Amino acid sequence: MAERPKALTLSEATSSGVSSNRLSTKDESDLSRLIFAAVTHVHDLIREFRPTRDQWRELIAFLTDVGHASDDRRQEWVLLSDLIGASTLVEELNSKRPQAATPNTIRGPFFRSDTPERGSGSSISLDGIGEPLMVGVRVQDLDGLPIAGAEVITWQANSEGFYENQQPDRQPEHNLRGLFRTDAEGHFSYRSVMPAGYGVPDDGPVGQLLARAGYSMRRPAHLHFVVRAKGFDTITTHIYDASDPHLAEDALSGVRPELVAIFEKIEFNGQDGKAVDLTFVMVKAKPGRAA
Amino acid sequence: MAERPKALTLSEATSSGVSSNRLSTKDESDLSRLIFAAVTHVHDLIREFRPTRDQWRELIAFLTDVGHASDDRRQEWVLLSDLIGASTLVEELNSKRPQAATPNTIRGPFFRSDTPERGSGSSISLDGIGEPLMVGVRVQDLDGLPIAGAEVITWQANSEGFYENQQPDRQPEHNLRGLFRTDAEGHFSYRSVMPAGYGVPDDGPVGQLLARAGYSMRRPAHLHFVVRAKGFDTITTHIYDASDPHLAEDALSGVRPELVAIFEKIEFNGQDGKAVDLTFVMVKAKPGRAA
Repeated sequence: MAERPKALTLSEATSSGVSSNRLSTKDESDLSRLIFAAVTHVHDLIREFRPTRDQWRELIAFLTDVGHASDDRRQEWVLLSDLIGASTLVEELNSKRPQAATPNTIRGPFFRSDTPERGSGSSISLDGIGEPLMVGVRVQDLDGLPIAGAEVITWQANSEGFYENQQPDRQPEHNLRGLFRTDAEGHFSYRSVMPAGYGVPDDGPVGQLLARAGYSMRRPAHLHFVVRAKGFDTITTHIYDASDPHLAEDALSGVRPELVAIFEKIEFNGQDGKAVDLTFVMVKAKPGRAA
Repeated sequence: MAERPKALTLSEATSSGVSSNRLSTKDESDLSRLIFAAVTHVHDLIREFRPTRDQWRELIAFLTDVGHASDDRRQEWVLLSDLIGASTLVEELNSKRPQAATPNTIRGPFFRSDTPERGSGSSISLDGIGEPLMVGVRVQDLDGLPIAGAEVITWQANSEGFYENQQPDRQPEHNLRGLFRTDAEGHFSYRSVMPAGYGVPDDGPVGQLLARAGYSMRRPAHLHFVVRAKGFDTITTHIYDASDPHLAEDALSGVRPELVAIFEKIEFNGQDGKAVDLTFVMVKAKPGRAA
């Protein structure tokens, strides 16, 4: 009788090793390395949780549903990555900065690169609907010196929590968006309306699961900014309204204390409104790195 | 000025805690608990691998592609779970047995519950194509005592590596399938043809990725069995051909030494063929558990 050949045996004790040995051989592409690193975690998860066959099937059915909910207009996978804090963590790891500098956050899906340039003092509210807001912006370096000629793009939701590209029929194009440049003092200002917080899409499989878990699907009210200046690292960030009741449970885990601002009550033109002064602190780009 | 409220801050040091605290609250369903356990691993993976934004986007694009490749007829997620050894590990954890008992494996997608019953000694090869194979089966308990009246369903690929339900136009229905019952000695036998090994689907995103990594997409030649008997735990298993060159690199990591059998050369009816004798060892079902 022939001798039995050695079989590859996957058992509870050996499974991570067997699978990662088999997978970490020839393909050195980033995607392969990342997925093969994930395989070890999948095995660890299974050993820790010890799912039944039915539970494992249920997980696969959920992942299948997430895929089927994704199309050209909706990316349920990005939503899942956002809601479990993965997107924010990746952003955090990729934008380590000195403590005094303005931190980065994820850009989100509503940015438009073709935002029109506007002069300091002008309004970005093209329909005038909402509680008036005055925003003063200063851009400076780590030494507190003003950065002149910095380009600042801002965008925000309206007083009902919708971006103009979510409501092309109800808001003027480029409503609540503007591109500004800082003056010699690193300063500009603009008029707007108070943004409202909003809920992230909760009608897909990810939203349904997390809603059942009592997970907040709310984003607290915020303004978005991209700040660019020659010789400095670009800042992509949010500024959050300190009075928003959902501040401590942002669905995207994107709130940091440095990004929370007090929107003060003021009166202008006989109307109640709010005002906020913001300072963005930029870090010099390392040589050889794009600004 | 109002005091700034505490914001929830997700950082490299706190991310797993922040995310799992937020997620482990209200929903005690199995799926939620499993997904929330997975979230901690996703954060650990990100901290270990430190993907760039582009690498993370690439991973999300891959997961999206896996979803889009899945439909009613093809389950790319199950394939991914199978190929990374996850399905086999879940099976392993859910069927712990005494060492002398026949181990379980995954059932795979080609089982049919409506397999026709056949008498001992009959052939399950309805088209007679392939190298003849004689199979003798004995079903016994842990003490070596025969189990009479056990129901054994077998199914297998043909000599080209295809199951009849993959080739409804080329193979007779129920070709190479049969349901048998053991006699008073726990025994029956049947005739068949030698199965060929085959490749798992490699034209989807999972197959393309793993093929680039040099991962074997081959399944070594095997026979499938489900063994049921009143009062015993059902066995779902494979028997692998010891001479198959791909035995040590089964795509599904499902080969275990106890399941590898020598298919001996024999001659019958003047024709060269193979013969194999198999013993399945069943474990008594625990009270209150379905057989």
